[in-house]
Amino acid sequence: MAANQEDVKLLGATGSPFVCRVQIALKLKGVQYKFLEENLRNKSELLLKSNPVHKKVPVFIHNEKPIAESLVIVEYIDETWKNNPILPSDPYQRALARFWSKFIDDKVVGAAWKYIYTVDEKEREKNVEESYEALQFLENELKDKKFFGGEEIGLVDIAAVFIAFWIPIIQEVLGLKLFTSEKFPKLYKWSQEFINHPVVKQVLPPRDQLFAFYKACHESLSASK
Amino acid sequence: MAANQEDVKLLGATGSPFVCRVQIALKLKGVQYKFLEENLRNKSELLLKSNPVHKKVPVFIHNEKPIAESLVIVEYIDETWKNNPILPSDPYQRALARFWSKFIDDKVVGAAWKYIYTVDEKEREKNVEESYEALQFLENELKDKKFFGGEEIGLVDIAAVFIAFWIPIIQEVLGLKLFTSEKFPKLYKWSQEFINHPVVKQVLPPRDQLFAFYKACHESLSASK
Repeated sequence: MAANQEDVKLLGATGSPFVCRVQIALKLKGVQYKFLEENLRNKSELLLKSNPVHKKVPVFIHNEKPIAESLVIVEYIDETWKNNPILPSDPYQRALARFWSKFIDDKVVGAAWKYIYTVDEKEREKNVEESYEALQFLENELKDKKFFGGEEIGLVDIAAVFIAFWIPIIQEVLGLKLFTSEKFPKLYKWSQEFINHPVVKQVLPPRDQLFAFYKACHESLSASK
Repeated sequence: MAANQEDVKLLGATGSPFVCRVQIALKLKGVQYKFLEENLRNKSELLLKSNPVHKKVPVFIHNEKPIAESLVIVEYIDETWKNNPILPSDPYQRALARFWSKFIDDKVVGAAWKYIYTVDEKEREKNVEESYEALQFLENELKDKKFFGGEEIGLVDIAAVFIAFWIPIIQEVLGLKLFTSEKFPKLYKWSQEFINHPVVKQVLPPRDQLFAFYKACHESLSASK
């Protein structure tokens, strides 16, 4: 594929669920890319120049043209490399995929970020409750499909990598029982299917490292309470 | 156009910038639709059934199929009625349009909502400052284009209706001088061009009513301080 021989770079940081979304999309398409690991405490000139607005990873650079925001990047990848479609072709199904991806960012990732980084017990409970309700909506939405995208991985699955891989680690660190097979049997089954998918498996960060990172975060926050 | 004879409904509330986005898109396309005004203190069964997740307007219903989230709806409209394109055809330009629309929601609308509904002076200043920085990015992005979309109104213009029409009203109520022609000459010029566009003009809510609404909001918040 000609497009594969183009200049494709991903500025990322191992352990970021947003970077991981882009990696899954690229692997699904079979696009060769150069992964440039960023040190987020000392960001590269290329990162600052490519994403002057947010100064965050991921930044995707295709033939010198930079794009930020993980879901925007995933849609760009899907529109640029047409094989193995990530979004459905039907406009209504596309709208639903965009709706649920945004829902995951707003309601699941947003709440989780808050309960990781809060030491206020009451505040944490409120955020956990919000995540719980959001997961219930996703459990219902999944129905009996293998993936949110149907038989194949789609946009919502990619957005939900945070739920499949990050939430179980974070809840273990915090001693929560939020996302379990008893509470969310369909979503749990999906998460196992998803993280064991050959494409997803090869881009997930090492679980031990991620666990150690969040544990250290949590301990340092608790100590400074 | 056959699509125009289909069943197209918009559940909305006069005065909502999010609903207004969808109205602009529909008018640009020349799509006939039925506007169903919602009483947000006593939501209709149809709204609750069509948007069980957020229970908010706008909800767009096309041939019985509901879609929520204003920007998701605008993209759906653009994919369904192909005349007068709202998103560019080039994937990179599409990605930029999505990036800036999301930026407006996250950084401008998000911050403005906070400074309308806060009585804490310090908190308000912080949020106004955040809006100010965001507007500066948009001023730079606009360059010397007539619209963000170029010669025609596009996704970013539609997303930015909040800046063109709502922010001037809100800042007048709050006595702020945030978005002025001196501080943001390009963006200000754009806003005048945009709100006087024949399509936009016919869907903007009455300025006096909106002003009275935010004034009452502000006074009631200040009184309960």
